[in-house]
Parts: sequence; C-alpha cells; structure tokens
Amino acid sequence: MEEVIRCPANYVPLSPISFLRRSSVVYRDRPSIVYGDVQYTWGETLQRCTKLASALSQLGISRGNVVAALLPNVPAIYELHFGVPMSSGILCTLNVRHDAAMVSVLLKHSGAKLIFVDEQFFEIASNAIQILSKNTAAKNLPQIVLVLDKQAVGAVNQTHLSRNKLEYESFLMSGKLDFEVYSPKDELEPISLNYTSGTTSRPKGVVYSHRGAYLNSLAAVLLNEMHSLPVYLWTVPMFHCNGWCLTWGVAAQGGTNVCLRNVTAKGIFSNIAEHKVTHMGGAPTVLTMIINCPANDKKPLPGKVAVMTGAAPPPPEVLFKMEDLGFSVTHSYGLTETYGPGTVCVWKPEWDALPPNERAKLKSRQGVHHIGLEGVDVKDPKTMKSVPADGKTIGEVMLRGNTVMTGYLNDVQETQESFKGGWFHSGDLGVMHSDGYIQLKDRSKDIIISGGENISTIEVESVIFSHPAVLDAAVVGRPDDHWGETPCAFVQLKDGHDQVSAAEIIGFCRDSLPHYMAPRTVVFGDLPKTSTGKTQKFVLREKAKAMGSLSHKNASKL
Amino acid sequence: MEEVIRCPANYVPLSPISFLRRSSVVYRDRPSIVYGDVQYTWGETLQRCTKLASALSQLGISRGNVVAALLPNVPAIYELHFGVPMSSGILCTLNVRHDAAMVSVLLKHSGAKLIFVDEQFFEIASNAIQILSKNTAAKNLPQIVLVLDKQAVGAVNQTHLSRNKLEYESFLMSGKLDFEVYSPKDELEPISLNYTSGTTSRPKGVVYSHRGAYLNSLAAVLLNEMHSLPVYLWTVPMFHCNGWCLTWGVAAQGGTNVCLRNVTAKGIFSNIAEHKVTHMGGAPTVLTMIINCPANDKKPLPGKVAVMTGAAPPPPEVLFKMEDLGFSVTHSYGLTETYGPGTVCVWKPEWDALPPNERAKLKSRQGVHHIGLEGVDVKDPKTMKSVPADGKTIGEVMLRGNTVMTGYLNDVQETQESFKGGWFHSGDLGVMHSDGYIQLKDRSKDIIISGGENISTIEVESVIFSHPAVLDAAVVGRPDDHWGETPCAFVQLKDGHDQVSAAEIIGFCRDSLPHYMAPRTVVFGDLPKTSTGKTQKFVLREKAKAMGSLSHKNASKL
Repeated sequence: MEEVIRCPANYVPLSPISFLRRSSVVYRDRPSIVYGDVQYTWGETLQRCTKLASALSQLGISRGNVVAALLPNVPAIYELHFGVPMSSGILCTLNVRHDAAMVSVLLKHSGAKLIFVDEQFFEIASNAIQILSKNTAAKNLPQIVLVLDKQAVGAVNQTHLSRNKLEYESFLMSGKLDFEVYSPKDELEPISLNYTSGTTSRPKGVVYSHRGAYLNSLAAVLLNEMHSLPVYLWTVPMFHCNGWCLTWGVAAQGGTNVCLRNVTAKGIFSNIAEHKVTHMGGAPTVLTMIINCPANDKKPLPGKVAVMTGAAPPPPEVLFKMEDLGFSVTHSYGLTETYGPGTVCVWKPEWDALPPNERAKLKSRQGVHHIGLEGVDVKDPKTMKSVPADGKTIGEVMLRGNTVMTGYLNDVQETQESFKGGWFHSGDLGVMHSDGYIQLKDRSKDIIISGGENISTIEVESVIFSHPAVLDAAVVGRPDDHWGETPCAFVQLKDGHDQVSAAEIIGFCRDSLPHYMAPRTVVFGDLPKTSTGKTQKFVLREKAKAMGSLSHKNASKL
Repeated sequence: MEEVIRCPANYVPLSPISFLRRSSVVYRDRPSIVYGDVQYTWGETLQRCTKLASALSQLGISRGNVVAALLPNVPAIYELHFGVPMSSGILCTLNVRHDAAMVSVLLKHSGAKLIFVDEQFFEIASNAIQILSKNTAAKNLPQIVLVLDKQAVGAVNQTHLSRNKLEYESFLMSGKLDFEVYSPKDELEPISLNYTSGTTSRPKGVVYSHRGAYLNSLAAVLLNEMHSLPVYLWTVPMFHCNGWCLTWGVAAQGGTNVCLRNVTAKGIFSNIAEHKVTHMGGAPTVLTMIINCPANDKKPLPGKVAVMTGAAPPPPEVLFKMEDLGFSVTHSYGLTETYGPGTVCVWKPEWDALPPNERAKLKSRQGVHHIGLEGVDVKDPKTMKSVPADGKTIGEVMLRGNTVMTGYLNDVQETQESFKGGWFHSGDLGVMHSDGYIQLKDRSKDIIISGGENISTIEVESVIFSHPAVLDAAVVGRPDDHWGETPCAFVQLKDGHDQVSAAEIIGFCRDSLPHYMAPRTVVFGDLPKTSTGKTQKFVLREKAKAMGSLSHKNASKL
C-alpha cells in the first residue's frame, strides 16, 4: 500500500475546540449556557469565546502560556474552557476552596501569566499575588482579570475594580471576531493543567492534552448515556478535572449548561424544575444534600434525572432515597490523572430484579473502564501481575489508555514513576471480581495495618453508614500501643440522634465485621471536606494522631 | 512545559479493536450476534475473532495483506471486521451483486491473498479466480475460504467443499486463543478497503485507517443516538462502507447484531419483533419495502425503531408512512470516501409542530456534518470559495476531517485531485441554506443542462414521487436536438395504476415546476438498483442515449 497522504482534508488534530465550532452551526440558536438572567446560544458562545481568545492573544498569551482561573461555576469559567485553548494557552482552573498561600504556590508552580478571579475570591487571589511578589519580579506576577457577578454578589466593589485594570466582560469585548482561532499542530499539545486535590508541599500539576480531552469528552458523553441536547446542571465544579470533561462534552452534544454558583439542595431542585435538567453529577455528599432537602425546598422532577456520582461509593440508603425521588444514579471512579471518571459501574438490566441491598452492593463497585481508556486492572505493583479475579486479593488499581494524563508538570521523575510498567499507578487498592468489575478497598495511604492485618477503611465505613442514625462517617488509623494502629471512626449523626453512643457504633460494627476491623475509637462531629465533597482524611489522621496512642492497659477484651 | 512522555500508559493508537476487547469484559455474557439459531456473546466473539486472526496469521497473512470477502450479512462477515485487522490484515468486503468479471478486477486491483466466500456466491468467486488465472501466476491467486450456512442454503454442496481445502468454521477453529492480537503501531495504518459502487473500468479502492474507523464508529453511535446495549438489525450491507462503520460501532456500545441474509419486509418485521430491534438503516428502497409490506407479513413494533436512511432523500409519502408505523427516520448523507454517512439532518424539536409537508421538506435536506468530521461546505471548486448560504447558489459539496478516507489505493493522482485545496471534493452538487444545512441538488455528472439551464434531477424526481401512482422514479438527461438535453423520467408505477400515462406525469410535473424542468420523455418499468438500493443512473443514461435524440420537428409547443 502506498504512502499515506495526510492533509487537512483527511487529518485534523483532535481537539474539543472542534465541538464548539460544530455546535455553533448545528445548534446555533439553542441555549448553550443559562445562569439566572444570563442566557447564551451556541452561536453566541462561539463568538464570545473567539473574542476571549483574541483578547488573550492581544494581551500576549501565546502557545504554551498558562492562564489560571479562580472561579465557581459561572459562565466565565465555561467560556475559558474554549477561549483559553483557542488562544493557544493552557487553562489552569484552581480550586476555590484554596487559601491564598496555596493559590500562590500553584500560581508559582504553573507560571500562570494571568488569573481570572471571581469577585468573591478577589481577596484570596490578591493576597496570593502579594505573597508571590516577595520572591518574584513584578513583571512576572500574574495579572488579575476580575469576573463580576451582579446577580450574585450585588453592586460592584469599586475598590476591587480600581485596583485592577481588567474586568472580564470588557476584556472579552476588546477581542476581535475575525481572530484566527488556534488549532493545535500536534494533538498531544497541552490544553489544561489540573492540580490534584489534597496537595500540600509538593503540588502535582496534571497535564491534559487536546487529544485526551477530545476522547475523554466523547467517553464522558457515552458513559453518561447523554443523547443530543442534554440539559446539564453544573453541580460538579468545573475546576475539578475540567468538570469531568463535560465542559467540552456538553458542547459536543449541543446541550445546555445550567450554571450554579453555590451548590444547595434548593438551588438544585429549582434549577432542575425550571430548565428540565436531564443530567448532573456530584460526590455522595451532593446526593446526601439532595435527599436531606427540607420538603419546602423540594420540587417534583420534570423527568428522570441521570446523576453520575464518584469520589466515594454511594451508601445504599442514599441510593434508595435518590431512586425514590426519581434520580437514576450511576457510580463511577477516576482520578485527576484520568481526566475524571475512568471506570463506571455499568449496570446490567437483570440486576434490576435483585433485592435492594444486593443492588446497592453491586452499585458500590467501581466497575469497568469507559470507552476512552484501554484497560483497568488490579495488579501487584512489584511484579505487575494481575491479581486473581476472586474479589478478595488486594492489589493496586492501574489504568492505561489515551485518557490518562500527559504527565505531571515539570516532574518527569514522578511521571515516570507513575507510569512504571506501562500502566498508570492509581495509588488506590482494590480487588477484581470474577465478572471483570473492580472494587476499591482503599487508598494505599488510607489502609490501616492493625496487628499485621490490612483493614479496608471503606469496608468499615460502609458498615457504619448502614446505621440508621449516621449521616456521614470516615475511618482512619489511630496509633495503638499494642496493635500498631486501630480503626478510629469520625461520625456525624443525623439531627435528633445525639443520644447514640460510641459503644453503640462499635457494637454495631462488631455485629457485621471481624472484631479486629471494628473501630476502637469513635469521635462525633462534622467531617472536613474538600470542595468536591471528598472527606479530608489527612485532617482526620492528624486528629487521630493528636489523640495519642490508644492504651490497652485497662482493656477488658480485645 | 517539558517534553511529552508518550508511553503505553497514556497513548494507544486508536483502533476499533479496542471496542471488542472492552465489550468482551463489560458485556461478556450479553448477545453480540444473533442469526437464526446462531447466537454468540461478546466473550465468545472476542474468542472467535482471536482464533480467526490466529488462523489468518498461520496461513501467512501479515501486515498490509488484503483479505477479501464476498458475503451477505451473516455472522462471518461481522467476525471478519475484527478478525482481519487483529491479524494485521486489511479487510476488503466486495459487493455481492458484482459479477465474476468485476470480482476478478477487484481481486486483482486489491492484490487480495484470500477471499471468504458465502456458498451462494461460490460460482462467482470461482469464476472470478478463473478469469484472474489467465494473467496471474497460480501462486498469486487468492485462496477461497468457503462460508457455509446450513440454515439458509441447506445441505452442504460437496462439490464446492471438495474443490476447496478451506471451510470457514474449521479454519477459524484451527486458530489459537493465545494468539497475540495485532495492534497498529500507527493509527493511520489501513484497516479496510472499500470499492466505490458504480465503478467500471477503473476501480477506486477507498482506504480506511484504524484512526478513522475508530472515530467514525463513535460518530455513528452518536448520530444514531445509540444508547448502550442497542439491538441493531443489519439491513445495511456490511460490505458497504463497513456497514456505515456500525460493525465496529455496535461493538463499542455492547449491542446485539441481528444478521439478515436477505432483506425482505417480512424478515425485517419478524426480526424486529423477535429481537426487540432498536436501530436499523437503509436506503429509501428499504423504507419503501417496509411500507408496502403485505398486512400478513407485518408485525407490531415492540418499541420505537430508529432508522437511518441515506443514499437518496426519503420521499415525503415514505416518511409519513414510516412514522405511522412507529419508525423514526433520520436522513443522512455520505460517500464511501467519508466512511459512510458524514452529514445528518439533525432534527430540531420545534420542527415537530410544522405541517407534514414542511417537515418532509426539511428532512429531505442532507444537513450538517457529524462529530467525526471537521466541516462540510458548498464551494465553487475553482475558487474554493463558499457559495452564499442562500439555499439557491449551486456549488460542490466538500467535506474534511478525520473521517475522510486515507486515499484511493495505488492512485496518488486521483487522491490528490480529490483533496485539492484541503477539502474532499464529493462530486455532488448542492446548496447551503441560511441555517447551515446543506441540500444536494445532484451529482455533478447527473445534472441535466438543458438550453443552458441547470436542471436538478433530484428536484424533478421529488415532484414525480409526490404523484400518488408512483412507486419509484429517476430522471436523467436524454439527448435533444434543440435543447442539447431534456429530462427523461423512468417511472415505476404502483400495482393497479397501469392506466397512468406519460402525458399525465408530464402534466403533473408542469403543474409544480418550471416547464423546462418537466420531463419530455417518460418510460415506465422497473428501475435498475445497486445492492444498497441506489438507482443505477448510468444504466438509465445509457438507455436514454440509446433512444436517440428527441426531435422537435413536430412539437406543437416547447
């Protein structure tokens, strides 16, 4: 066969920018973004993103420059997902829960030239740049573009405005419509930079490529069973894995992006009813928020709402109540390094006939790889051999395929380490079931080793969750003078259940777990959360450590 | 940003083979193929295709070798879509309507090493090889692998078997399960070779790549609005553009392939009812067959059946009747060079409220490019400028993107010609509407030039189609001593309408068309069709030519 002719007629580097270009024709007059009074069509969104790209280019953003954002789910962060790559820049969305110190670390690490900041987070960004200025030349400090939001924040803070030359809307309007939109020359060029959550001293900046983003967007569309013209409610922060790549995926399907600044149960119900939402996502905490919504704030759903959940398996009770409300919950699993969800617990129709507890058990599994990935496996990281598919033997969850990150920014060693043996090492421990579905047992660092036995904190937590008085729970290891470590449970009780004692929780666990797995310590109170609803176990570990070693001098039985 | 690390953990050349590998895990025990008594699961299909690949490899098929097939829609042709690329070969499926002479030309042009032949077409293949043997050394002649089909063809023809060493099922079983399946090193490597229909002296072999096939499969899944676990009825021949790439697409979604050797209305209805078909496809002739199905052979649909039609716009009457029966028809357009459908008439919900004729008019448009392509446009081929989006100015339809062919096999010149200016030149004439939807007016070679005026034969045909007595129609140019050419209509009447005269058809056209566009000649009878249901206009053109020049000596009025 003769040499392949590769030319613009038959080869275009994959990039999500193509989705917007297509939707601006196919879905020209259909709503792209709604946010309170604000509404745009796909035709308008292409125009606005083109102007935004042009304005960035006029300001000097060029190929490979990082553009940061500290924004909640408002229209601007959606537009930046196209506008920045269309200018040839790399989008770096920061978690709005970060403090100024953390933001300054990430600005420095990413080398961002510019940061788009919501008025609400102006002080944080401003202080971050102040910190940065101590060891950075003024000309290298990132400029702030202030994003105003009259309908949420109220009157414009003139002090903020006066301290900055750039305001989002007028900045965007300064761009030109005839700007020649950037297309990557090589589809492996970076499109975005996402810092992993929970990072402290050594930030890990995960680089996504145009190719990976394109392929993961389509995979996300398929794993969400998203027909064309979906209405997507933005309960997942767009700053998290680029909204699990659905920022771009919703554009691919000509859907409507319903923006939501603050995630509240009332806001969720009213937006679903008003805009006829078809799809949304969220960590189990978002589901908990929904099922515990006061009756006054609830509204009937206009139709089935598909909810993709992740970050932690949804507790059975939460699942049942969501189903009763008319939501259809799918469980997925992934990491920042896999562009968000990489596996999904694909539901088999015959499982519908099983008793509720069986269904919940099946649904708590992390499942199988989505179509963007090439494989997921549970392996012994030393030998790289697959563990037996027995649902018992613990190994490390590993993934590979085109929707695994390009690498960690400026950290070749860490990247190579994580790709050892041709698989991405997730750091999560799990098992492989006989039907090819994986199930997480723990993070490597979360596992408790007690008297030489591995204790999966997820297993202990799932038992505690099944106690009717428990709203939320997390288990970590507490130093123990005899066993090395023993489980320590942090439990948040439902309102009106304050009478439940530590002894009751411990007894409840002993009823359904081997005794060595039951908690020895129970602490009641609220749990610290990340912005994506993950419990911050490192905070709890610190607390457990601070309690000191559990002594067994007076223990009557072990 | 540092150099990109590209390794097996984060980069896998795109190939539809990945779909099968994934479905064999995710959908392991679900039906992959059903055909009469035959039924396989996805787990089995991976095993069978692996063995098939191994058997091919044992026979000497290696990278870049062409493996041909002359097969109707039976399980073997589906398995070859994976088995051949998994062996590193290139699949070349031939149209089963070809005669021995044509098959010999294509075997020679493709250099096929092997041909899989259904028993029904054994004589054709055998004769083709006989013809080929006249100027080809015996060792270079393709071997036949005979595909038997007891349930359709009856007892095995021992003569056929004795003349061949290879029989499909035992050939496949000679392969090994631990065969190392081929993965393309470069995703632009060829996966299949498809000869364009209607070719005579100079065969055009369209080469598809693994990358293009992967991306077009996903695009096909999305444009068919195919959720997971679809049940796809194979009314589109798999030898045509690899079944519009749904051979691979159905695997991506873990669907069931319902095979159908002969496309009959009865077979369609009974398979839909038995297997709960959700999706199918076909040229308008297939739709016509469905709506004209005798009441006895009809069965109620178990649910909505989505039908993708192409090759020609569906006539309004056909559309309405299909809708009445419970089918939902989508109109698409494409060419072998675009891996099958490349555009789709994306339906807007607000169009549902329009009167039936308006809806039919909108649906007859070829629409917008699907997500695998980068663009479709109507251009002046000389200047490469877009025509105005006025719905009137005729230009050439051009497409570009990753789902445009790699090129024509061994024909660099023709390939370069067709890619001139960075767009694939379709040879079809059309207009661009103000909403960005394209509409075909004709093939370049089909357009009639009469007295200097361009006449779109499609427009004339659509008027003839609206005559209640007409079952099928096609218009070509007939030499005319005054006008150069005038329209000549070939019309097939419905049963019981034989009384309709040529004059009535001509008068009917003059009522709704400018007079110069109305046919001057009407010929009644059946229309010659390709296997995909396209009318063979070149045959009709020959007929019209053979009638000789229309003379106007005695014409009373023009």
